[in-house]
Amino acid sequence: MDLKKLIRDVPNFPIEGIIFKDITTLLKDKDGFSDTLNKLYNISINKEITKVVGIESRGFIFGGALAEKLNAGFVPIRKPGKLPAKTLKEEYTLEYGTDSIEIHKDAIDENDVVLLHDDLLATGGTMAAACKLIEKMGARIAQISFIIELDFLKGRDLLKDYEVESLIHYNNE
Amino acid sequence: MDLKKLIRDVPNFPIEGIIFKDITTLLKDKDGFSDTLNKLYNISINKEITKVVGIESRGFIFGGALAEKLNAGFVPIRKPGKLPAKTLKEEYTLEYGTDSIEIHKDAIDENDVVLLHDDLLATGGTMAAACKLIEKMGARIAQISFIIELDFLKGRDLLKDYEVESLIHYNNE
Repeated sequence: MDLKKLIRDVPNFPIEGIIFKDITTLLKDKDGFSDTLNKLYNISINKEITKVVGIESRGFIFGGALAEKLNAGFVPIRKPGKLPAKTLKEEYTLEYGTDSIEIHKDAIDENDVVLLHDDLLATGGTMAAACKLIEKMGARIAQISFIIELDFLKGRDLLKDYEVESLIHYNNE
Repeated sequence: MDLKKLIRDVPNFPIEGIIFKDITTLLKDKDGFSDTLNKLYNISINKEITKVVGIESRGFIFGGALAEKLNAGFVPIRKPGKLPAKTLKEEYTLEYGTDSIEIHKDAIDENDVVLLHDDLLATGGTMAAACKLIEKMGARIAQISFIIELDFLKGRDLLKDYEVESLIHYNNE
């Protein structure tokens, strides 16, 4: 199944000049959803994953489903102030200013083998910050998976210490 | 499996005096995750669901997994400004002020049979607004499911036109 055909281009979102890759047209297609999940599952099936970590909020959509299929637990990484118990926080740089993400301190331990998942790899700043959080907790990052990778933004360079897998690649803007 | 044992009480979150029901301790437990998903699946298995609609963002975690198990598509309802294409919007009242949610206009049609899912039923304002969005699109709401229902807040009263199912009930604060 050619998943790329189910991705919609939305021009000028979120700002003028950006062509947004919209996965909602893939999500609403039951065969597209199922095929995407199976492909993500197949690339992680032999990694002995104990925790799937999904990045808020589109990373939750397949992250939860992957956790169940891989017989692992699910751990959310969220925007600041959303997680109720004690958290670890990591800041990262955006084009203008900074942002940050949090994880519960007791969500992961040093015996965990982690799959990190998000829908899209752009510049890689968020995922690199997520990796730092997992490393601080002493767990092993076995793999990072995305549905879409925007190759021309070279986000993979920020994640070069890890195995990175993406189902769909775009080579130019 | 007694799922209630996996839910954590966090006092004074998000504000003083509230005891927050934290599901992250359930999510990170692989058996808890799997058992929750199977219970949610079993209550919707014979409803001929064509679209699972998850409410941002905790409703995405099991919403995606339910879509795949029910052989349905997945549709996100999100906070304003997050969905890139044309949307329908619905406002709802909070204790102080209003909030709103959006859905893509082309996400659902009048032939769809919809399961709405979120993690927690409190006062029901968000889910009632979500139901209005689905009704506007002409689809049939077959069921609404939650992991947790705070019975003492009587959110079910706002959803009395629909079949509402919750896995875990709390009868007092």
